[in-house]
Amino acid sequence: MTAKNKLGTESYKGVRDFFPEDMRVRNYMFRTIRETVESFGFEEYDASILEPAELYESKTSQEIVNEQTYTFTDRGDRRVTLRPEMTPTVARMVASGRRELGFPLRWYSIPNLFRYERPQRGRLREHYQLNADIFGSNSIEADIEIISLAHKILTNFGAQESDFEIRINNRGALKNALMQNMNDEEAEMELSKMDKGNSELSVKIETSEETRSIIEALKERGISNVRFDQTLVRGFSYYTGTILEVFDTNPDNNRSLFGGGRYDNLTTLFDDEQIPAVGFGMGDVTLRDFLETHGLLPEIFRDPKVFIGTVDIKPKDAQDIAENLRANNIPAEINITDKKIGDQIKLAEKHAATHMIVLGAEELKNEKFTIKNLDTREEQEFSFGAISEQVAFILK
Amino acid sequence: MTAKNKLGTESYKGVRDFFPEDMRVRNYMFRTIRETVESFGFEEYDASILEPAELYESKTSQEIVNEQTYTFTDRGDRRVTLRPEMTPTVARMVASGRRELGFPLRWYSIPNLFRYERPQRGRLREHYQLNADIFGSNSIEADIEIISLAHKILTNFGAQESDFEIRINNRGALKNALMQNMNDEEAEMELSKMDKGNSELSVKIETSEETRSIIEALKERGISNVRFDQTLVRGFSYYTGTILEVFDTNPDNNRSLFGGGRYDNLTTLFDDEQIPAVGFGMGDVTLRDFLETHGLLPEIFRDPKVFIGTVDIKPKDAQDIAENLRANNIPAEINITDKKIGDQIKLAEKHAATHMIVLGAEELKNEKFTIKNLDTREEQEFSFGAISEQVAFILK
Repeated sequence: MTAKNKLGTESYKGVRDFFPEDMRVRNYMFRTIRETVESFGFEEYDASILEPAELYESKTSQEIVNEQTYTFTDRGDRRVTLRPEMTPTVARMVASGRRELGFPLRWYSIPNLFRYERPQRGRLREHYQLNADIFGSNSIEADIEIISLAHKILTNFGAQESDFEIRINNRGALKNALMQNMNDEEAEMELSKMDKGNSELSVKIETSEETRSIIEALKERGISNVRFDQTLVRGFSYYTGTILEVFDTNPDNNRSLFGGGRYDNLTTLFDDEQIPAVGFGMGDVTLRDFLETHGLLPEIFRDPKVFIGTVDIKPKDAQDIAENLRANNIPAEINITDKKIGDQIKLAEKHAATHMIVLGAEELKNEKFTIKNLDTREEQEFSFGAISEQVAFILK
Repeated sequence: MTAKNKLGTESYKGVRDFFPEDMRVRNYMFRTIRETVESFGFEEYDASILEPAELYESKTSQEIVNEQTYTFTDRGDRRVTLRPEMTPTVARMVASGRRELGFPLRWYSIPNLFRYERPQRGRLREHYQLNADIFGSNSIEADIEIISLAHKILTNFGAQESDFEIRINNRGALKNALMQNMNDEEAEMELSKMDKGNSELSVKIETSEETRSIIEALKERGISNVRFDQTLVRGFSYYTGTILEVFDTNPDNNRSLFGGGRYDNLTTLFDDEQIPAVGFGMGDVTLRDFLETHGLLPEIFRDPKVFIGTVDIKPKDAQDIAENLRANNIPAEINITDKKIGDQIKLAEKHAATHMIVLGAEELKNEKFTIKNLDTREEQEFSFGAISEQVAFILK
């Protein structure tokens, strides 16, 4: 093969490669999200990124299908879309399983989503998004729990209440106010204009009783950075009640982080039974920006891992030591190169090892070796058999 | 909306919805795989499912691109493929990062892969596949480690050596034997026929010295269900040396489970530097079949989770108890319905709770409640403040 027909090593435009150092950050973020969401009793679900195109062609999101989705025709002449959002998929699944699933359901997923847009800062063609929803409850307790969960995720990342603000409104109340002067269709168009900041109307609405109760209940639970915002609209017309949007309060990054709301009619796309729902979506790119802006990403994401360097011995001579560590849930990477020990240390560091053991003929003969902490440079000698002491040193 | 224009709730053909009960099985499987692979020091990477179509159009896999991939043209007139396998992607990433990454690399990922085929038993259009590879080592130590890892994953699931067999061959040696009587192109065609069982040739090859050393080294490490199989070929022509395939030994399910091998030339698609590599891919559908056939899937996949039932009190009265449990890493789901307690118990069971607390006016007054284990029916009374005792009862 000649140089001129070599392939480029770039990914497809607008998507990301996750090298191990990127993956450690992503895993840290997803792990924190998962632990928080599961602590509230949410159960994880997932689906394929491939969906029948019709799922996005209802009135609620036609604009997106036509202009921004990846939609193509498969070899069997079916029109397929790479999901641009998870809500239609989860509504489909909930409608499909409604006889067996016990409502209310608390469900979450961290799907990857696709939109065809010109790549630009923070606007990728593929991103990940936590979706957390409660299905089958009309109660404001569900709204309260969803907002509490959004709050808890950010505070579990170490955010202070002063770092962000939760704004809430009620899209149903807003639409009702508009419909005093116009019909349903005109009201939806006006809401869409308001969302884009293009409305010339100045609608004054009072805090609805429901919104007031939600804010009070949140304050009782110790959540005080929440306020009514009558200008809040949210893009999707499927929202029917409470809507929420979380904003970064940092003056350099003052923008919407994520949002959600109540959508009580979406499952009627599939059958006549209405299943009320409330939830939110939180994208990974915006979240990472927020965490970086506020200094909340830990510098080091490494879990314990031992690199076993070898000098003039065979990898198999390190096997028992490695397997003892592995049996105690400590990853152990054995050198299989002829590199000098200095280069093996560099390798250990590149591979995110936290500790190093060097084995040579001397160590094998005496059945003793030293474990070195690669961060603190602290080291300690252990006999081959003192496994629990080795583990304790590594985990401390 | 009238009944006749309702959407169906089925997923796109040939892909799967993962309801929470399916997700728990998938998470159990992936967790076991991850823990094993990471214990060997492998680092996780990932990439988008979208790749430039050219990546699959080299000689090595043209057949697949033409007949079996999802390939389409995006709105910017670029040809895009949903990745049908991970190896070209990881070769691309390794070639791209080769100046910074320290070789040898141990990398893994569990990507979802796409193939357009008529859906049939065990042949889905989307499946997940562990990919574990060592890059940058010519040593047979890398081959040995890859085979040891494949073996360890199955035994960590509880498989016995008698449940499966690892067959190995050397595709390079096989091809050299053929090339005594034909040219390169004819040899590749013959290998392809052999792979499909259509060859009329009877090629006798001896175990190469390399293969013999690998088998001996594995036996020294206690791996005895491995044997030389001169009929083994593997489909992909990019394999250059050792090839391996793992077979189920159960007479009712006697078939290939997964495989892999050494491919030393793949990064030369991108530049002139050859980076040797060896690895394997293990699909989730076949693995699950194997585990089920051998009774290795645990019946219950639930992690501890408490459902807090409420009788004539508000959800917020259960808040402190829930938050104490959550702070100790025990998920707690609070009832937000008006359901009777019998129905709340059913809900707890549907939502995979392992324990139940029932709170009413009496419990609030006395600051005492009972925790019931929903499997064993064992119960014990605790005071509100005895948090570590509550946690101990739940985790025991």
